[in-house]
Amino acid sequence: MALVGPAIILVAPQMGENIGATARAMYNFGLTDLRLVRPRDGWPNPDAVPMASGAKVVLDNVQVFGDTRDAVADLQYVVATTARPRDLIKPVLLPHEAAGECRARLDKGLAAGILFGAERSGLANEDVVLSDAILQVATNPDFSSINLGQTVLLVSYEWFKTGLPKEHVSEFKKGEQPATREELFGFMDHMERELDTNGFFYPPEKKLSMMQNLRSIWIRADFREQDIRTLRGVISALVTSKKKSND
Amino acid sequence: MALVGPAIILVAPQMGENIGATARAMYNFGLTDLRLVRPRDGWPNPDAVPMASGAKVVLDNVQVFGDTRDAVADLQYVVATTARPRDLIKPVLLPHEAAGECRARLDKGLAAGILFGAERSGLANEDVVLSDAILQVATNPDFSSINLGQTVLLVSYEWFKTGLPKEHVSEFKKGEQPATREELFGFMDHMERELDTNGFFYPPEKKLSMMQNLRSIWIRADFREQDIRTLRGVISALVTSKKKSND
Repeated sequence: MALVGPAIILVAPQMGENIGATARAMYNFGLTDLRLVRPRDGWPNPDAVPMASGAKVVLDNVQVFGDTRDAVADLQYVVATTARPRDLIKPVLLPHEAAGECRARLDKGLAAGILFGAERSGLANEDVVLSDAILQVATNPDFSSINLGQTVLLVSYEWFKTGLPKEHVSEFKKGEQPATREELFGFMDHMERELDTNGFFYPPEKKLSMMQNLRSIWIRADFREQDIRTLRGVISALVTSKKKSND
Repeated sequence: MALVGPAIILVAPQMGENIGATARAMYNFGLTDLRLVRPRDGWPNPDAVPMASGAKVVLDNVQVFGDTRDAVADLQYVVATTARPRDLIKPVLLPHEAAGECRARLDKGLAAGILFGAERSGLANEDVVLSDAILQVATNPDFSSINLGQTVLLVSYEWFKTGLPKEHVSEFKKGEQPATREELFGFMDHMERELDTNGFFYPPEKKLSMMQNLRSIWIRADFREQDIRTLRGVISALVTSKKKSND
């Protein structure tokens, strides 16, 4: 997996802990290009280290800038994250949409970045103006406050998802494949034979419909190869026990 | 918006702080049904309150259970979150897939829930066995550790997304609508008239292709109604300034 993706740009971040949480969230989802614009407490900041939980590669490669223009200078597509709508004419994207736009650019060799504002105040309009689009996380309108690290986590997560195969096909391990009809029929025959021996299908004129009901249950159960082996063992065990108790 | 969704079930959670973070993440994305199975430090736990950041409605309605079976007894679909693959025959879902499965059930009036294990050890196999499916978050394989609160955040976020309109259509505010061709042509005519007056289109035989190049630029710029008004003001201002300087 190539660790390439949009730059994450924190503008005027206040808490070193949040820079650390950002680094961790980024690296969890394969992002490594962290840029800081005027971090309040300077850089490097020892408060960032514990929260980064080992995402050292991100902290070690942080670039620091004096203003937002310099931080985005090499980028061809910039998204600004805001908590509230701005009176600006920009497309407003959800995180997965912004991630998709970044992926489309990066696939063409263009550089993208995502701006995040200070914890308390968010981005200034003059920074939002520099961006191609606005990113907003849709939340419960009655409780919409999410913190900086969480917002970066959601955006990084959506970035990583754009690199996953569209169709998530579970691979079947040995024994986990759905049973073939032959295996299923072998089980049904076994079960029906033992039930017949024990007089389960009574009265005789109901036998066919009783068998059909049972077969529907087994089909619907979506047994795996291994399940069939287990269940045939169950039948044998029950029958043996009955034979024993009849001895 | 009806605040209805899957139950979030923490099995043997250790840190009150993580229960608080879980409550906050849930309520950010409209979930309120939090269930605790054998919380290490009992319940209520004052350590949960600061991290919940005001998601009091979730903390106030916590239900506590002695075992996982009781906690899922009323549910018809249960997903178990695990960090590593288990040797069990279950479908493995990504968060958005699990959220989609829960939504499909809830839309039919069926109750769903998602299990999360203890911080250190995760879910025991005996709890995973009780579930219909396994949920795993896909992460950077070199740095895959995400904490309990973050995992609940991602799952709750994906749940909320299932309730958003599939097509995210930005609503245009007044002035933000793309300009009509009439407005655009008015701008182009204005621009071309002034450029012509100032001898921009030279030599004359190149005038048509120069105009066509410029028109392509204006069309591609995707101007909004308000932009057109602004730009016509810009032209007028430039022309006025020139006339003044010629006085």
